[in-house]
Amino acid sequence: MPRIVVLRVGHRVPRDSRVTTHVALVGRAFGADEIWVDKKDGGLERRVKDVVERFGGSFRIRTGVGWRRSMREWKGRVVHLTMYGEPLDEALAKIPSEDLLIIVGAQKVPGEVFEMADFNVAVGNQPHSEVAALALFLDRLLGGEGLRREFSGSITVVPSARGKVVEEDAT
Amino acid sequence: MPRIVVLRVGHRVPRDSRVTTHVALVGRAFGADEIWVDKKDGGLERRVKDVVERFGGSFRIRTGVGWRRSMREWKGRVVHLTMYGEPLDEALAKIPSEDLLIIVGAQKVPGEVFEMADFNVAVGNQPHSEVAALALFLDRLLGGEGLRREFSGSITVVPSARGKVVEEDAT
Repeated sequence: MPRIVVLRVGHRVPRDSRVTTHVALVGRAFGADEIWVDKKDGGLERRVKDVVERFGGSFRIRTGVGWRRSMREWKGRVVHLTMYGEPLDEALAKIPSEDLLIIVGAQKVPGEVFEMADFNVAVGNQPHSEVAALALFLDRLLGGEGLRREFSGSITVVPSARGKVVEEDAT
Repeated sequence: MPRIVVLRVGHRVPRDSRVTTHVALVGRAFGADEIWVDKKDGGLERRVKDVVERFGGSFRIRTGVGWRRSMREWKGRVVHLTMYGEPLDEALAKIPSEDLLIIVGAQKVPGEVFEMADFNVAVGNQPHSEVAALALFLDRLLGGEGLRREFSGSITVVPSARGKVVEEDAT
């Protein structure tokens, strides 16, 4: 399986901590392997690691990672999610099955990012949310497989039409 | 076309204003007609109205709307998005083509919401983001049609593989 890393560019502490947490958890739930965040953010790291510990899987987070160097040294393709990009379906047809670095901007992204990316991809050309854009992109890229994976953590949610059913390990 | 309204329950000002903005814009971009928010939030209203004014369409926002009364008086079906619900695909097969009120919780949602909803629906049973859950739900419900709509606002983004191309009315 190709490796999928999400790279969050322009993260501001504490302003973006909450939305970046959503970005990270969406990455994990929809099939990415890792998130890298350009600014150091210990609280964000702890929140994401805590979810991984309880709900399982091997998703990883690193913060304080330079975006320019990460893009330059990435061995694989770089996809930049932006409302200005080409339509999702057209881009997906061109993206090869290689390791992917997916850029998700927090604020206005430097023009360089558009130039350095192999693909600038729009999940619709309306302003909405980078959280939703990442979810849709991963869902389409992996044909819905991301969401169907099992995580085998110490907490397992049992799907239920009427209420909360949770299984917890006694450990 | 059935009417689709998103109802945000448990919104806290200012803590949730930013994430609720994402929820509202995702609602607009993915095919909902309106968002109702349970707490009054003038800043949120202004931000959403500003996007509608510039980018077009007829999406509406109301804040300070009681959730219990809204659920009780809704003529149509009520869908509650929750990681504890039944799987998306199974639920979609049962949801009729009627007006839909879609509940999106900001914090822990009262147990009553689970009971009052016609459908408790999980976009995956892992913790991620209500922003992503709403996007995926609307995308699947409308078969991707939401994202393909034209909005004809004074600003139109022209899809581009290489950079920002925007058309603006001179008005």
